[in-house]
Amino acid sequence: MLSQSDIKLINALKLSKNRRKTGFFLVEGPKMVLELLQYPNFEIVFIAANKTWLDAQPNLSQFSIKEISDKALQKLSNFSTANEVLAVVKIPEHEVFSVNKETLYLALDTIQDPGNLGTIIRTAEWFGINEIICSKDTVDCYNPKVVQSTMGSLYRVKCHYCDLSAFLMKQNVPIYGTLLNGKNIYSETLGKSGIIVIGNESKGISEAVQSCITHPLFIPNHPSSKAESLNASIASAIVLAEFRRK
Amino acid sequence: MLSQSDIKLINALKLSKNRRKTGFFLVEGPKMVLELLQYPNFEIVFIAANKTWLDAQPNLSQFSIKEISDKALQKLSNFSTANEVLAVVKIPEHEVFSVNKETLYLALDTIQDPGNLGTIIRTAEWFGINEIICSKDTVDCYNPKVVQSTMGSLYRVKCHYCDLSAFLMKQNVPIYGTLLNGKNIYSETLGKSGIIVIGNESKGISEAVQSCITHPLFIPNHPSSKAESLNASIASAIVLAEFRRK
Repeated sequence: MLSQSDIKLINALKLSKNRRKTGFFLVEGPKMVLELLQYPNFEIVFIAANKTWLDAQPNLSQFSIKEISDKALQKLSNFSTANEVLAVVKIPEHEVFSVNKETLYLALDTIQDPGNLGTIIRTAEWFGINEIICSKDTVDCYNPKVVQSTMGSLYRVKCHYCDLSAFLMKQNVPIYGTLLNGKNIYSETLGKSGIIVIGNESKGISEAVQSCITHPLFIPNHPSSKAESLNASIASAIVLAEFRRK
Repeated sequence: MLSQSDIKLINALKLSKNRRKTGFFLVEGPKMVLELLQYPNFEIVFIAANKTWLDAQPNLSQFSIKEISDKALQKLSNFSTANEVLAVVKIPEHEVFSVNKETLYLALDTIQDPGNLGTIIRTAEWFGINEIICSKDTVDCYNPKVVQSTMGSLYRVKCHYCDLSAFLMKQNVPIYGTLLNGKNIYSETLGKSGIIVIGNESKGISEAVQSCITHPLFIPNHPSSKAESLNASIASAIVLAEFRRK
């Protein structure tokens, strides 16, 4: 049974400040929770699930399990359709991050929409990016909507939060970024390593971060297009696909 | 002043069935409404705006204008941050659609997430796609969240809803689609015309539509990736970028 303090904790984890305070985050839904069980570096505090889900699991003996009614689960959920299960999970501590000169990274400058961040993490994994450097004001990667839209990639891709321009300034690797006055991405030689910067949804890449970019790029639009820009997660995907294209 | 029946109408337009019944949809926010004014094929029923927004407009004399308080506007809005203005707009009637053999189209098989559809419409315009064929169960392109995430591209890209497999069966043009057993998109010769099919967020392309695909494609993932799939709007973008790449 879920106690009142468990319920209070689950509700609290919807807010970033409470995730920071407790060091916990929330994983919701059968797909995300079942996949989580394969990653022992994510320590599970407890699993709250309805009877149907619990009865279907062969072995959960090593976890703290709390049965919960569908109604109570729906009330706790961040999503409109009821999920059978949720887990309270410890936020893993990442080792201090340093850039490997042979590796390709993504850096996010103030990505604010949780759906965008989740989609970027998912797409990054598809294209073999294992670590993402996020500006401090990028949305928290443990936000419930981010977690959900990563579709499991959050378990495998690490997000490091830092003062992005200060971080980039110290790196001695190519730093790519999409800018309106950049060079056509299809005519540039793109390396196998370096850092690709993606800017904010409405303001693009900040001035401080722009000054660190060594290779400005531009995704050309069709001559007939009057669209002003691409969504940030779409731009990330097109750039990553082009880097990984053979 | 906004009457009670205006308020009732605006609230009703959040639901697809009421948009069908009235033939109207809702446009929210200064960016979207100002851009709308440039497209006379979209007939404006009325504009409801706060005093600040109205005072800043040079000439709105040809429109039916209703002043509204910020508080009332926030209550009516579909979005968490208050917008200064909204417009009730007539859904334009499209002429009967037929495929031009020289043109590239996008077809959507049961795209259900409004954010995905909006982003797909925006990306489609960027890559010079002017018409999208949608299966009947694809989310309504006049859904407020779709409208918002098109960032104005909805004014220029037409969405045609139809029985998608019946429609595709009758076409004598290349029909492309991303399938798990498709051919590597980077090694295929992609034409300048035809129809690119994008499948549902979780189920992909339905069997009936799959049987119409003449050119199955696959976006290769990185060997290290354990991600199972890409988001539907991301897949659309990568495929469109590859078709338009020079």
